[in-house]
Amino acid sequence: MTLNWEQIVRPTLVVDEQRVWENIKRMAARAQAADVRFRPHFKTHQSKEIGVFFRAAGVTSITVSSLAMAEYFADQGWNDITVAFSFNLREAALAAELAQKIHLGVLIESEASAAALAQLAPHRLDAWIKVDSGAGRTGIAWQDGPHIARVARIAQAQPHVRLRGLLTHAGHTYKAASPEEIPVIYTQSWQRLAGICQQMQSEFGSLEISVGDTPGCTLSPDLGAVNEIRPGNFVFYDGQMLSLGVCTSDQIAAVLACPVVALHPERGEAVVYGGAVHLSKDTLVDHGHTWYGYVVPLLRYGWGAPLAEAGVARLSQEHGILQLPAETLNQLHVGDLIGVVPAHICLTVAALQRYITLDGRKIITCPPDLG
Amino acid sequence: MTLNWEQIVRPTLVVDEQRVWENIKRMAARAQAADVRFRPHFKTHQSKEIGVFFRAAGVTSITVSSLAMAEYFADQGWNDITVAFSFNLREAALAAELAQKIHLGVLIESEASAAALAQLAPHRLDAWIKVDSGAGRTGIAWQDGPHIARVARIAQAQPHVRLRGLLTHAGHTYKAASPEEIPVIYTQSWQRLAGICQQMQSEFGSLEISVGDTPGCTLSPDLGAVNEIRPGNFVFYDGQMLSLGVCTSDQIAAVLACPVVALHPERGEAVVYGGAVHLSKDTLVDHGHTWYGYVVPLLRYGWGAPLAEAGVARLSQEHGILQLPAETLNQLHVGDLIGVVPAHICLTVAALQRYITLDGRKIITCPPDLG
Repeated sequence: MTLNWEQIVRPTLVVDEQRVWENIKRMAARAQAADVRFRPHFKTHQSKEIGVFFRAAGVTSITVSSLAMAEYFADQGWNDITVAFSFNLREAALAAELAQKIHLGVLIESEASAAALAQLAPHRLDAWIKVDSGAGRTGIAWQDGPHIARVARIAQAQPHVRLRGLLTHAGHTYKAASPEEIPVIYTQSWQRLAGICQQMQSEFGSLEISVGDTPGCTLSPDLGAVNEIRPGNFVFYDGQMLSLGVCTSDQIAAVLACPVVALHPERGEAVVYGGAVHLSKDTLVDHGHTWYGYVVPLLRYGWGAPLAEAGVARLSQEHGILQLPAETLNQLHVGDLIGVVPAHICLTVAALQRYITLDGRKIITCPPDLG
Repeated sequence: MTLNWEQIVRPTLVVDEQRVWENIKRMAARAQAADVRFRPHFKTHQSKEIGVFFRAAGVTSITVSSLAMAEYFADQGWNDITVAFSFNLREAALAAELAQKIHLGVLIESEASAAALAQLAPHRLDAWIKVDSGAGRTGIAWQDGPHIARVARIAQAQPHVRLRGLLTHAGHTYKAASPEEIPVIYTQSWQRLAGICQQMQSEFGSLEISVGDTPGCTLSPDLGAVNEIRPGNFVFYDGQMLSLGVCTSDQIAAVLACPVVALHPERGEAVVYGGAVHLSKDTLVDHGHTWYGYVVPLLRYGWGAPLAEAGVARLSQEHGILQLPAETLNQLHVGDLIGVVPAHICLTVAALQRYITLDGRKIITCPPDLG
């Protein structure tokens, strides 16, 4: 069976499973060659079906971004799951339930969150200390070894808790000025963690190091002295990764197919059904343009490379305003479909909660972490 | 029954129904005093339960932003619905189904979309011509009377189509530099439409004028010579409306309650569970700050006014980074709940698809327009 574009009547995320499989194999091979555990982040695809591809590539441990997502994948038979979001004290009861069922890893970054792990006793779990290695989002600052040690002590004092190691997300690779800068940030990031581990060795023994961004894990020639990598985005890649030079256009594995509802040739724009509720409002920067996504032509099977000088210039709730070159606009009709490579695929998947493969298979993602 | 904050463990949108009711009554009274049809936009709340409030305020005609939403509200007994999104040719079959069941209004803005209404015959429907009165999003430019007339002719030639009038969304009020500018934009907008109607009168008879934004409908002392208004946001208001001076803080009727997961007093920040997948990534501007939302303290019943010099400074998928004054940070603990007034409530509701009232009533919104 092949996806029939004629049956697409609304904004629909289309996934190329062949590219997904190649993206997974490539990253798995990188981890294997470096003898590093591959614990992919499942928040990008959020689906049991794509999970099957990872299993086929030998993956047994995964990362998720919420306890709700952990619960969903636990129900799918995944039993080694790290929730890469600072432990939420208010969900301690759900965490305890999961720790009983699977090998659960949680992130702590304060005395309070370390102490709260007591609520999960006697169920065994792994604790990772979330370290801010330079991204400035959250985590204990890498310079503050004494604070990291205090939190580690509280965790280690609990018999049901295994202090596993230090975990970071070098999210500042997403803001790198050039592809060359990315391995530099990656290396600096794990080395900062390695330095802390060395300081802590005498009191805490050997601690593991877990790192995770797609840019760093894709472009660093050397994955370094880390124990595991947790990239997620690479499964589909997206407009941000393409504009950063992290992937090539033929590695882009997901595109939003959008109906064209209006043409405004006088200002070089087309309006599509496909807005902020479908794409999210994240952006990429390309040659001075800020786009919500790239524009691609849809082919009989799949899609082409992004059109030059084209992008999603503005978004409102359901409207996407595409800036297009005259030759593209002239060939476009109201009622046609056109493709958009989302700037940030993780948010698009979270917004849509479903996609369809080029073979016409419908995939529903895990329920959102609400209610 | 009263909402028990202790039971909130994840990011949860909380709605104050008393304020919703007051916001609805106020706007309904404005429309009634001006003898203008009130056709509120339901894309903001997306729920049958809030729809009941509108019915109680005498509303019988509504606006939605997708055919899927029209279908949902048609099932709830609403039978006069305008889909305020340019007619999507690919959904003609669904539109025909709806036109058979309810009094359906659609937007056309090209010869192609006007001609495509033939696919809905013989079911009667209203056609509104979408005019761009200055916002620059979509619609036929108000200066292009001949184009508007050409599209009108195609619509009017079809026996099942009633050419109802001209419709605009003066979305540029959202970018007004001051509250005083908003009524100026509002007036300019409807007057541009009135000018076209006058030119078209001899050929097309009396055409109606439909206008719609919350800022203009809230702040214009005079609603002008229009036939209907279609505001939506006012039912909850939000951070953008507050920063624009369109509403007061005690008219804000929806707040995202977020668990605090980390504190970073050294940089004046707290991290909450509540990110881009919950709030969306729309922003507001306040005294030179760009925020994804304001921060409010949660009270035993409801919430307080936004904290000064506080806001959601950064967002990633599940993380919200709040900038907070020291006195607030000092009183905050990991595990507490704190409130966020979303910058753009329509997108937040679309992202969450559910909310809870201060009385503890759970409300599920209409299914998204996908699949």
